[in-house]
Amino acid sequence: MALTERALIERYFRECGARRSDVPLGVGDDASLIDVPPGMQLVAALDTLVSGVHFLPHSPASSVGHRALAVNLSDIAAMGAQPAWALLGLTLPGVDETWLEAFTSGLGALARKHNVALVGGDTTSGPLCITVQVLGYAPKPPAMLRSGGLPGDVLFVTGTPGDAAAGLALEKGELSGLTEDAAAWLRGRFLYPTPRIELGIKLREYASACIDVSDGLLGDAGKLAEASRCGVVIDFEHVPVSSHLVSAVGDARARELALTGGDDYELCFAVRPEKVDRLTRELPPGQWNYRRIGVLRSEPGSVVLRGGTVMDVSHSGFDHFAR
Amino acid sequence: MALTERALIERYFRECGARRSDVPLGVGDDASLIDVPPGMQLVAALDTLVSGVHFLPHSPASSVGHRALAVNLSDIAAMGAQPAWALLGLTLPGVDETWLEAFTSGLGALARKHNVALVGGDTTSGPLCITVQVLGYAPKPPAMLRSGGLPGDVLFVTGTPGDAAAGLALEKGELSGLTEDAAAWLRGRFLYPTPRIELGIKLREYASACIDVSDGLLGDAGKLAEASRCGVVIDFEHVPVSSHLVSAVGDARARELALTGGDDYELCFAVRPEKVDRLTRELPPGQWNYRRIGVLRSEPGSVVLRGGTVMDVSHSGFDHFAR
Repeated sequence: MALTERALIERYFRECGARRSDVPLGVGDDASLIDVPPGMQLVAALDTLVSGVHFLPHSPASSVGHRALAVNLSDIAAMGAQPAWALLGLTLPGVDETWLEAFTSGLGALARKHNVALVGGDTTSGPLCITVQVLGYAPKPPAMLRSGGLPGDVLFVTGTPGDAAAGLALEKGELSGLTEDAAAWLRGRFLYPTPRIELGIKLREYASACIDVSDGLLGDAGKLAEASRCGVVIDFEHVPVSSHLVSAVGDARARELALTGGDDYELCFAVRPEKVDRLTRELPPGQWNYRRIGVLRSEPGSVVLRGGTVMDVSHSGFDHFAR
Repeated sequence: MALTERALIERYFRECGARRSDVPLGVGDDASLIDVPPGMQLVAALDTLVSGVHFLPHSPASSVGHRALAVNLSDIAAMGAQPAWALLGLTLPGVDETWLEAFTSGLGALARKHNVALVGGDTTSGPLCITVQVLGYAPKPPAMLRSGGLPGDVLFVTGTPGDAAAGLALEKGELSGLTEDAAAWLRGRFLYPTPRIELGIKLREYASACIDVSDGLLGDAGKLAEASRCGVVIDFEHVPVSSHLVSAVGDARARELALTGGDDYELCFAVRPEKVDRLTRELPPGQWNYRRIGVLRSEPGSVVLRGGTVMDVSHSGFDHFAR
């Protein structure tokens, strides 16, 4: 391999993210120095993507870069925090400059969009694996934990979950016969998910609890409910699905995918009933792209209702160590 | 695999590190919340260890856990910062509970020794690879960068570099015929390096520049010199070596290994000449385990002098993408 680690840093990583005046020392020393805004709490997330597990080996490198950052930004969004700084641990089987160029352009574009500086990291040789660590900040006290929900809280989800799972199926060649538009949309939702940063920050004023939907809506809503010592009831008919997903797999299967597919990186959040009117008035659902899907209740467990009857949804999520 | 990610977290990671009152939310939500002490600057480091590259596949798991944290603590030490919080990205080929138990005990013991809380992370399935991200803090302005050295500054190194390289050679079966004591010492220096946290913090008052020695003393001293727009002269006879290393490979080869071996995780630091007396009086070298090895000079480049003549040291470090 021709490039040294240092040359890699200079060529691909030094200018990759946003420039921020609160980073007195970024890439290139033993560690990075960051000025956290006074009075703010630091928020930290870390996620790893492994080739063949979290993305397909032939995935576009720009998507791999985008997703490695997006999955972390989504965690930060779920806390209602402002992302600001990132570190990158990149393990590469070799130096493929075309791949690296596309990877850093995907990661860098998303970083700059959200004003996130890449402040440090490590490049190593080995099987392709990417760990990104994102730091952000939020006012104290924390507004949105998983555990803040109460029975009676109304449950919402952003976007159209299930699209990413269908996009992955398309990438794997397990789904076909779609229109070009539908295929492009679904593939795009898997390859370039949208972390809901702006909404997450706004939701601090309204939501009692929030979780990032990465392992399937039903399972993640269940985690929020459990952390809040509640159960959850989801209305099958209210689960939002995209017209493209419906055109691809039909209405019922689309909603099942929305409940059980992974990789959505949407937000699922609970709002006290008395705050719902204000929420929907001040953050119109059509404009902010979220929908009411159910309610928390005191009885534990997760239930999906379809036409008044409890549905059996067999596959309740996605666990890297269970599949 | 029997354990879910959640069970893994509960069993191995929730209680792994130190408890700190400045972590309002640790392992288990979408992200972690941290209260950085007011007026302090955040210091962030991230390092990845890959099986077969940074450790041998048969390495004791407790050593892998220790080293994954130690390499990051060493980066934090080189900034003169106080480590406080860590996140762990752990990619495992499968759930081997014996391995995990030993891994977390190695990582946890070192974390608790330095009062570092494990506040979050991610476990994924894939080829064995560990990324640790350590956060710490230091008073502003930053005291010890790589770039603060000036011509005339005296250069020091901690510990006895080269031991780890010999320990690795032992682990690989490339070195033999040692006494039991020597083998145990050298192996220990590779498997369980000592991050120089306490000295790093003290050095803020004395050092003009500092670097973590991880890729070979000569190469890393050269990086410090270059960042400081200086060159460096190292006295071969002054390079500290352990009696165990000398007994294993002889005096000259020991010093060569000290200059070029990797994985030491010692500190190399520069001190203005007028501060050297105070340094050695207030932090006695025998007690704090460091030694004067050379000097920075205005002429660029790295030179090793042996008996007054310039030595040719062919292998000047360790680069993951060059070896």
